[in-house]
Amino acid sequence: MAKIVQCIPNFSEGCNQETINALVEAGKSVGGVTLLDHSSDTSHNRSVFTLVGDPQGIAEVAFKLCKLASEKIDMTKHKGEHPRMGATDVIPFVPIQEVSVSECVEISKLVAKRIWEELKIPSFLYEYSASNPGRQNLANVRKGQFEGMPEKLLLEEWAPDYGERKIHPTAGIIAIGARPPLIAFNVNLGTSDLQIANKIAKTIRGAAGGYKYCKAIGVMLEDRNIAQVSMNMVNFEGTPIYRVFEAIRFEAERWGVPIIGSELIGLSPAKALIDTAEYYLKMENFDYHKQVLENHLL
Amino acid sequence: MAKIVQCIPNFSEGCNQETINALVEAGKSVGGVTLLDHSSDTSHNRSVFTLVGDPQGIAEVAFKLCKLASEKIDMTKHKGEHPRMGATDVIPFVPIQEVSVSECVEISKLVAKRIWEELKIPSFLYEYSASNPGRQNLANVRKGQFEGMPEKLLLEEWAPDYGERKIHPTAGIIAIGARPPLIAFNVNLGTSDLQIANKIAKTIRGAAGGYKYCKAIGVMLEDRNIAQVSMNMVNFEGTPIYRVFEAIRFEAERWGVPIIGSELIGLSPAKALIDTAEYYLKMENFDYHKQVLENHLL
Repeated sequence: MAKIVQCIPNFSEGCNQETINALVEAGKSVGGVTLLDHSSDTSHNRSVFTLVGDPQGIAEVAFKLCKLASEKIDMTKHKGEHPRMGATDVIPFVPIQEVSVSECVEISKLVAKRIWEELKIPSFLYEYSASNPGRQNLANVRKGQFEGMPEKLLLEEWAPDYGERKIHPTAGIIAIGARPPLIAFNVNLGTSDLQIANKIAKTIRGAAGGYKYCKAIGVMLEDRNIAQVSMNMVNFEGTPIYRVFEAIRFEAERWGVPIIGSELIGLSPAKALIDTAEYYLKMENFDYHKQVLENHLL
Repeated sequence: MAKIVQCIPNFSEGCNQETINALVEAGKSVGGVTLLDHSSDTSHNRSVFTLVGDPQGIAEVAFKLCKLASEKIDMTKHKGEHPRMGATDVIPFVPIQEVSVSECVEISKLVAKRIWEELKIPSFLYEYSASNPGRQNLANVRKGQFEGMPEKLLLEEWAPDYGERKIHPTAGIIAIGARPPLIAFNVNLGTSDLQIANKIAKTIRGAAGGYKYCKAIGVMLEDRNIAQVSMNMVNFEGTPIYRVFEAIRFEAERWGVPIIGSELIGLSPAKALIDTAEYYLKMENFDYHKQVLENHLL
């Protein structure tokens, strides 16, 4: 099996089709790297790319995209609903296959160093790459956004991890880091009572005392008139999806509410779903790497 | 995604290490084909190879292995417990990815034709490739074995699909065909009563009125003193593994017996397990091909 790393850079451009096309071309220009997906949102004025490849290729494509974004995007003119601080706003590296989180931390540091040395764009390391706990959370790091960064960088605790205490004049500053794959997983409840979804979400989310690697809120699906527990599973090895599913089931029982369905948004690693099958089938001595046929094909 | 076909040829040699090594070398000699596994059994005097590759490569390696086996193995001297009729005894082709069963039927016919034309070894087409329903079942086709074949081939209904009505003097005759992936899946019961496992097996196996693509028997795990329902799932799209698991659960309840575990023997396609997760999580609108990350890497 080959080493595979995923990279999901976010760019502060979601309207200008010429810029987006140029980024797409750059995303396809490195051997050993595949651009799996890209989507742009005009109200957020932001584009999200999903790439996979070997460690060298993924580091190269991340740099190339960042260089191009710095040439095409002027943050002094950027407007959009989504919080942002740089032309390339955030570059997460995710281990997919035969690669550890710490190898992805190394990649994030190499890329951050090169971006500073060659492009003079500073960066913060975040998530697993963070140099201190206050920088793990992306929202903390990005607080103040592009406009507030010049001031923030002068605060004692907010020196960039790479670069000087000032932003690049038009490309701003970037958050770069390693994180586990994120799975967007929602569970639909047989009730139109949003309060119940909110109460259940509170019992399972890590921040409120629930499962460490689960972020959860209640949302209303207006078209179906049902409430949903909407989750980001930020580490499916640490908190498996079947575990939150069963926890939602027993919490919902208290309110006499059944689970009527679930949905996976976007992509999931196969292992997160196969771990689920392993749990429900009570499989003994199952070896994911050896016994799943496709693992011998990659 | 590339086209991938699996081939699991069985050879009538499980003792002579020189012959086995030569077959292993041949199994590794075709570009685009990977020898995933091979195992030899001395009491069966038989070896089973598992290969995967693109359609052209897999057809080439099947022919090469068959040619080598015909040079190395003399069926007039073969003894072993397992029923057999040829030096290469059976060649199944299994669709794994982006390949249909009917493409595998075509491959099986091309290989059978070439084996006759170049090696003068006749063959029967079986399973999905069978030319009539009486040839679908391998046991039917092989009945009489190597020693009885000269006589069998003279019966009106048993002309080979390729070749004349006589076996190759030392290599015999081969069964060649396409079949879906086979999953060996066993469910362990919380009882030492083999009768209960046998009764449950009878309710779920296709031959006795149960699920069409499930073969099941009760067996005793002597070392653990528990009974097991041992299954071959011969078409997991037609009869999914979660369905027989749940059926075993409700049949076992009648006897007050719990399921205490299950085991997968050998390899399974990822989809068989992910279908299981989809069922238990009640997933809505799930798209296996698009939403499983690894499907974009293959």
